Amino acid sequence: MAGLAFEGALRRTVLLGGLVAGAWIVVPGVASAADDLASVKAAIAKNHAVAVKRLQDWIALPSIAAESRAGKEGADHMAQLARDAGFQRVEVIPTAGMPGVFAILDAGAPKTLGVYFMYDVKQFDPKEWSSPPLEARLIDKPGLGKILMGRGAVNQKGPEAAFLAALHAMKDAGRTLPVNLVLVAEGEEEIGSTHFGEIVNRPDVLAALKRTEGILLPHASQDTTGGVSIDLGAKGIAELELVSSGAKWGRGPRQDLHSSLKAAVDSPVWRLVQALQTLVTPDGNKPAVDGWYEHVKPLTVRQKELIAQSIEVRNEKAEMEEMGISHWIDDLPFGKAMERLAAEPTINIEGLVAGYTGPGGKTILPGRAVAKLDLRLVPDMTIEDAKRKLRAHLDKRGFTDVEINVTGGYDPTQTAENSRLVQAQIATYKALGIDPSINPRMAGSWPGVRFTGAPLNLPAGTFGTGYGTGAHAPDEFFLVESSDPKIAGMDEAALSFVRLFYRIAE
Amino acid sequence: MAGLAFEGALRRTVLLGGLVAGAWIVVPGVASAADDLASVKAAIAKNHAVAVKRLQDWIALPSIAAESRAGKEGADHMAQLARDAGFQRVEVIPTAGMPGVFAILDAGAPKTLGVYFMYDVKQFDPKEWSSPPLEARLIDKPGLGKILMGRGAVNQKGPEAAFLAALHAMKDAGRTLPVNLVLVAEGEEEIGSTHFGEIVNRPDVLAALKRTEGILLPHASQDTTGGVSIDLGAKGIAELELVSSGAKWGRGPRQDLHSSLKAAVDSPVWRLVQALQTLVTPDGNKPAVDGWYEHVKPLTVRQKELIAQSIEVRNEKAEMEEMGISHWIDDLPFGKAMERLAAEPTINIEGLVAGYTGPGGKTILPGRAVAKLDLRLVPDMTIEDAKRKLRAHLDKRGFTDVEINVTGGYDPTQTAENSRLVQAQIATYKALGIDPSINPRMAGSWPGVRFTGAPLNLPAGTFGTGYGTGAHAPDEFFLVESSDPKIAGMDEAALSFVRLFYRIAE
Repeated sequence: MAGLAFEGALRRTVLLGGLVAGAWIVVPGVASAADDLASVKAAIAKNHAVAVKRLQDWIALPSIAAESRAGKEGADHMAQLARDAGFQRVEVIPTAGMPGVFAILDAGAPKTLGVYFMYDVKQFDPKEWSSPPLEARLIDKPGLGKILMGRGAVNQKGPEAAFLAALHAMKDAGRTLPVNLVLVAEGEEEIGSTHFGEIVNRPDVLAALKRTEGILLPHASQDTTGGVSIDLGAKGIAELELVSSGAKWGRGPRQDLHSSLKAAVDSPVWRLVQALQTLVTPDGNKPAVDGWYEHVKPLTVRQKELIAQSIEVRNEKAEMEEMGISHWIDDLPFGKAMERLAAEPTINIEGLVAGYTGPGGKTILPGRAVAKLDLRLVPDMTIEDAKRKLRAHLDKRGFTDVEINVTGGYDPTQTAENSRLVQAQIATYKALGIDPSINPRMAGSWPGVRFTGAPLNLPAGTFGTGYGTGAHAPDEFFLVESSDPKIAGMDEAALSFVRLFYRIAE
Repeated sequence: MAGLAFEGALRRTVLLGGLVAGAWIVVPGVASAADDLASVKAAIAKNHAVAVKRLQDWIALPSIAAESRAGKEGADHMAQLARDAGFQRVEVIPTAGMPGVFAILDAGAPKTLGVYFMYDVKQFDPKEWSSPPLEARLIDKPGLGKILMGRGAVNQKGPEAAFLAALHAMKDAGRTLPVNLVLVAEGEEEIGSTHFGEIVNRPDVLAALKRTEGILLPHASQDTTGGVSIDLGAKGIAELELVSSGAKWGRGPRQDLHSSLKAAVDSPVWRLVQALQTLVTPDGNKPAVDGWYEHVKPLTVRQKELIAQSIEVRNEKAEMEEMGISHWIDDLPFGKAMERLAAEPTINIEGLVAGYTGPGGKTILPGRAVAKLDLRLVPDMTIEDAKRKLRAHLDKRGFTDVEINVTGGYDPTQTAENSRLVQAQIATYKALGIDPSINPRMAGSWPGVRFTGAPLNLPAGTFGTGYGTGAHAPDEFFLVESSDPKIAGMDEAALSFVRLFYRIAE
């Protein structure tokens, strides 16, 4: 997910107790479900090696939209995975970008659950990895168990493979799913779901989704203590490039010149620097674009209360160490920093590229400079309004030539705490011995607004036990066999989905 | 040379007439020199293929200090070239960086000329070249003649090879050089001559140089009309990296974090942007560092006169087109822009590197950001004072953590118009039918201050007929066989050095 990579560090949880074997089976008051669970659990265990192999094969085929890599192959593979898992109607849907997949599993059930998959992964550099990122090797990690290391292991193929394993096990155990499923999958999540709207908004897809109780994204939600956080929302995001160039400006050089000419020729790089610095407060900490806060909704009393609850049991020092920081922004105390994380829109520079970027120097006056920005948006900001405001802000200051090339993004998403989907998630976790923390809004982003926004207006969120880390980073992994009774391995994660199906069906 | 790449575009000249064959031989009033020239000219022609091969072999061995490439091999090769050309004493001098070469050719003459060589070349990317940059292929260029294309062809191995060809020809013609030579060569010119002082300041090298009339750097000085400009000085340069990092700052992350955390964590990239924008005026056109102009000497009346003279016959439109610009800085008229080019110190951004620099985006909050700057200095600025002022400027604004890593540089250089070396150059060019333009100061840089500054205080400058272009760029070339009678090929360039020897000897 574009925004989830470090959520682990910011997640907290109260753990009620270890996940003793019984806890996975005994669901109080759901006797038939319990019967089903026992046989399904056995099927999951029996299928373990096959499920791991399925995940490994999937990781061996990395789809990366930013590199136009394996879009069609990834979608075809996704479609086949859906067919194999029991979806009766499966269709690859082309878009102007990477194709997506739409699939329906009709179990004849009264209730229907929506599922969102991403089949793409983040870019990677094998040199930075301790294990080949496409080989998805199984590695023993002391204190944790057997992990599977590879690009996409936790973000998002591992949890999605656990979800598929749940469907296979239901089938193999001869059980009918208690809910119907509608699956939408895309290959551009990591570049901001640029064309996902083309999939979701197709009339038949929209109609199918409309019938669901809500949409969930399979996720390895546990932290190292076994705890889980339920995110009721996520910030929106706009990824864009600000480009200053002599060609567009009509001043400075149209291509790189010798740097000695700076005395007589304008510099598009200095122009970018000057444009950039107007976008934030002098300390770089808050957006300073004209009108940026116009539609920013402050946190509600309940949201602040949830944040205050969540930090009570968190280890601030350990989290800061994991992040490699020694101060929160503006030297805020923990609680206030976490409120900012939920409440504050951001303008972040994710990359700067201009002129010579190699070792040492090179005496050039570059003809072009680029800043890669990501803007995080909070309710009720919209990406369209943010783009307009950014353009107007730059224009007003004379930077009409500085281009804004938006490469992707979507609006913020928010789901009501009292929705059936959220309540089913809470109940499922509690039945597993986990008292989930409720996070009013995660700072990361995912295109949940496609579901929570108009015209669907449905609940949407992530779900699943399990553990993994390293999204967007080297040595990404997903825990396959847990040696810690508090933390789910792949099989237990699969079972958490089965449990949720029964809760939703209730 | 670090600064010469686009000098061609900014150079002007009055051309008195074509270089008719006789013009290369008849030196009025120097009968014995004329005899020598005839036989030397014949020897140059006889040796042509060998001289070209010598240049090709040299280009095949690229020394690049920025990449720590072929330092020792380059110096050894340089030393062998000097030995082959007749230098009796040749020594490779190690430094803390790339080694250099010191050589003496004692001709028993009353007068001695100093020569400065660089054996290193600029980085290159073969993909950007139309001909393999290390193969130094000979290519027919219509209207110009046969060119030799390769990295270092004009900057600076071609002109230096022409100089060596002159020495070989003198020897082969059985002529004694009319001057002794002292050669100093370095392999770090392209990174700012970081350790060249270690070579020049060795007592015996210093003593040898002290005895010279001045020091020249072989150069292909002609433009496409055949004209030549004599640069009386050059700006100084400091190349440096400004680095902002969470590690040094103690705020923000020590390594890259997920970008969603921007709301709660400081950004070292924004810090760099904010620090940068204080360094220049809001339009990016002039340095705004406290006290930057304290030691800047305005142009003299004579210097402005020389600039006014030089632009009279230049084609402003053609020069702007060649540079890919449509406006001079601040919309200045040509003459004022050229005065700025000579008079104004600059702070240029040659590169920006932070976070993710690949295609598309990557949602990170980078832990580190770097701006590569080159500062051009004019008399009487010094690099030491500039470094102090930059540090003080940043410190005063609270940017004490923003590192300044100077990777190389040297002070400005200036040589008197009435020095013997300059007057000999003018006379030599005039004897060849070229009325040289006198440029008070070039905007580029070369480490002439090692010679023009204390303790040597000698004249120093570039010299040589010939033509080439593309220094620091792809498809760099040196004209080997000219089809234009107004422009020298390699043989004629070699002869221009022979002529200068006799002028200096007078």
